[in-house]
Amino acid sequence: MTNFSFESLATCSHTKARAGVFYTPHGEVETPRFMPVGTLANVKTITPAQLKDTGAQMVLSNTYHLHLQPGEAIVAGGGGLHKFMGWHGPMLTDSGGFQVFSLSEMRKITEEGVTFRSPHDGQMIKLTPERSIEIQNILGADVIMAFDECPPYPATRQEVEAATDRTYRWLERCITAHKRSDQALFPIVQGGVYLDLRVQAAEALAKLDMPGYAIGGVSVGEPTELMAQIVQTTAPLLPVDKPRYLMGVGTYREMAIAIASGVDLFDCVIPTRWARHGTAIVSSERWNLKNAKFREDFTPLDETCPCYACVNFSRAYISHLVRSQEILAYTLLSIHNITELIRFTQKIRESILSDRFLEDFGHWLKTPEVGETEA
Amino acid sequence: MTNFSFESLATCSHTKARAGVFYTPHGEVETPRFMPVGTLANVKTITPAQLKDTGAQMVLSNTYHLHLQPGEAIVAGGGGLHKFMGWHGPMLTDSGGFQVFSLSEMRKITEEGVTFRSPHDGQMIKLTPERSIEIQNILGADVIMAFDECPPYPATRQEVEAATDRTYRWLERCITAHKRSDQALFPIVQGGVYLDLRVQAAEALAKLDMPGYAIGGVSVGEPTELMAQIVQTTAPLLPVDKPRYLMGVGTYREMAIAIASGVDLFDCVIPTRWARHGTAIVSSERWNLKNAKFREDFTPLDETCPCYACVNFSRAYISHLVRSQEILAYTLLSIHNITELIRFTQKIRESILSDRFLEDFGHWLKTPEVGETEA
Repeated sequence: MTNFSFESLATCSHTKARAGVFYTPHGEVETPRFMPVGTLANVKTITPAQLKDTGAQMVLSNTYHLHLQPGEAIVAGGGGLHKFMGWHGPMLTDSGGFQVFSLSEMRKITEEGVTFRSPHDGQMIKLTPERSIEIQNILGADVIMAFDECPPYPATRQEVEAATDRTYRWLERCITAHKRSDQALFPIVQGGVYLDLRVQAAEALAKLDMPGYAIGGVSVGEPTELMAQIVQTTAPLLPVDKPRYLMGVGTYREMAIAIASGVDLFDCVIPTRWARHGTAIVSSERWNLKNAKFREDFTPLDETCPCYACVNFSRAYISHLVRSQEILAYTLLSIHNITELIRFTQKIRESILSDRFLEDFGHWLKTPEVGETEA
Repeated sequence: MTNFSFESLATCSHTKARAGVFYTPHGEVETPRFMPVGTLANVKTITPAQLKDTGAQMVLSNTYHLHLQPGEAIVAGGGGLHKFMGWHGPMLTDSGGFQVFSLSEMRKITEEGVTFRSPHDGQMIKLTPERSIEIQNILGADVIMAFDECPPYPATRQEVEAATDRTYRWLERCITAHKRSDQALFPIVQGGVYLDLRVQAAEALAKLDMPGYAIGGVSVGEPTELMAQIVQTTAPLLPVDKPRYLMGVGTYREMAIAIASGVDLFDCVIPTRWARHGTAIVSSERWNLKNAKFREDFTPLDETCPCYACVNFSRAYISHLVRSQEILAYTLLSIHNITELIRFTQKIRESILSDRFLEDFGHWLKTPEVGETEA
C-alpha cells in the first residue's frame, strides 16, 4: 500500500487535534478537512470546476446509488469514477452498507450479506462484502470502505454487539476480496453508543495494518454528548500514523469535537441538502433566504467568504432566486455552504499548525445547551 | 444617443447578410449574434461566469417577470440589473408586452395600456407605454424595448392593423417617456403575416432616428416560409446603419434566413428550455439524452464543441445525470446548447467576413421539407 501515506505535521499541545497530509494516487488531502458528497457521481447542482473552487480536495460518491444507476460497468466504461465525473482529485466511495440498511426496502440480512429490492426496477439485489468490494474496485475511487452492518439508533446492546461482530467478520472477507493496490481499504469501527463495544472494535481493527480507519454509526440520532463520548473514546485507539475518518458528520461542533480527539476527515450532505432548501450557512447559523429581511439586503451572504456566490452576489439577489425557485439559487448556496464547511476545517488546520486550536476553537468543544440550534 | 453605434464590417456579395459591431455602454456585441435569455435576472441553471464562457455577449431579461418578482425597486437597490445579476456585459430588456399578451390572465386592453391579474398575488396590474419605459429605465439595461401590442397568430387583417397602429401610437408615448441617454430604445415592427402592413410599419419606424430596430410577432406559430417572407420584406426597409433584432427567433434555419435579409441579433429560450428537458442541440439535431443509445456512448456530445460540457464529459455521463434527474444535467446541457447557437452565429459572422456566407450556409436558406424536423 505504498500509494498511500499519512504525515502528521503538528499536534495540539492541549488536545489530540492534529494537522496532517493524506497522500493518495490522485493527490494530497490536507487534514483536518471536510469532504463534499457526490452521491450520484456529481456533487448536486455544481460542476467539478465549481467544486474545486470551494477548496474541496477529496470527494465522496455512493456505491449503493452508483450500482443502481448508471451501474459500475458504465462508470468503468467511462474510464472509472474520476474520469466519468470529471473530478481528478482524491475520491472515496462508501460500501453501500449504510444506504442498504437505512434506505432500502424488503431487505433481508444473513451472514452472507444483504438482499434488498431495487427502487429502480423492483428486482432483488444482493450485496455482500465481496460484491461491495468488487463494485468499488470497478468504480476506482482512491479510498474504498469496508462493507459493514450499521445498527440503527436506538438499538439494544445485543443487537449492536451482533452487528459489530458481523462487521468484523465481513471486514476479513473485504480484505480478502480487495484486488487493487491503488485503492486503500478503510475498515469501520461500529459499536453504537456502547463504549466498551467501541473500544473492543477499535482495538481489534487497530491490530490490522490498514491504510486508514473510519468511525461509523455516529450522528444517527444520538445526542451530541453521546456522539462526543464515542469519538473521544474511539479515535485515540486508532493508529496514530493513519488517517481517521468520521463518517456522515459535518456540523461545526461535531467536527471540532472530533478533531480534538484526533479525527482528520469528515463528510456530510448537509451543505448541498440545505442549499436545495434555500438555506445558507453563515456565521455558524442557518439562514433561510426566503426570510423577508433578506429581500432588500444588498450585502454578500458573508463578507469574509471568498466563494463565487459571496464575491459576486447579494443576499437580496439570492433571496430573489430562492423565491423564484430558480435552480441557480441552489447552485450558489451549494457553492457557499461547501466553501464554508471546508473553510472551517481549514481554519482549524491553521490553528493547529500555530498551536492555537484551543484558544481559537475551544468554544466549540462544549456540547450545546438544550434548545440551542445551530448549523 | 452617442453611447450607441453600429459599425458594418462586411456585407455578403449575394445576400443582405452583414457582419458588424454594435457598441453599447457595457461593451461590444459582434453581429450576427445569438443572445441568451435570462428571464428572471439569470439565465436558468448557469452562473454569469459559465454564461460568459459560452461566448455570450448580450443577454436579455424580461420586464414583465422582473416587475412581478423581485420588482424593479429591488433590482435598482442592488445597483441595477447588471450589478444585481452579476452580468457586466451588454443587456437588453423587453417591454413586457409580449408576456402580457401571451401569458397573463384577465387582461383588458385599452388605448391607455393593458390591465392584467398578477399571477403572484392576484392583484390587478396596469402596464402602459409610460410605465413599461419607467420600469425599464429603473432596471437599467443597455437596450430597452418599446411597449407594443403583439397580435396572436392567426388574427384577422383588421385585428392586426389595429394592433400595428396602436403599436405606433404607443411608440410615440414610449419615446416621450424615455429618460436615460445611456439606454437605447428600440421600436418594434409589427404587422402579423400581412406584408403590406409590415412594409407600412417598417417605413414609418425607419423615419424615426432610433438607435436600433426590432422585428416582432414572428415565430409565433406561422409556417417558416411565411416567417421568411416577413423578414425578407421587413428587414431591408430598416436603416442600414442601425442594428436589427429579430425577436424570439433561435433555430438555425430561421436565423440563417434572417441573417441573409440583414438581421443582426436574435434571442430565444430554446437552448435553456430544451436543456431542462434533457435535450442537446448537436449537428443541428435535437438529441434526447435519455435515449438508450447514449447510455454507453463515451464520446463528447460534440467533438468540435469547445464548451465546458463537451470538453469534460461524455454523452454517457450526461445521459446518466438526465436519467437521475440531477440538476447538473440541465446546467451542462444549457452551457452546451447556448454555446452551440452562439457558435452558429459566430461561424456565419466569419463566413460573411470572408464572403463565403452563401457557399457555407446557403443550404440553410431553403425552407424545410414538410415533415422534416430539426433544431
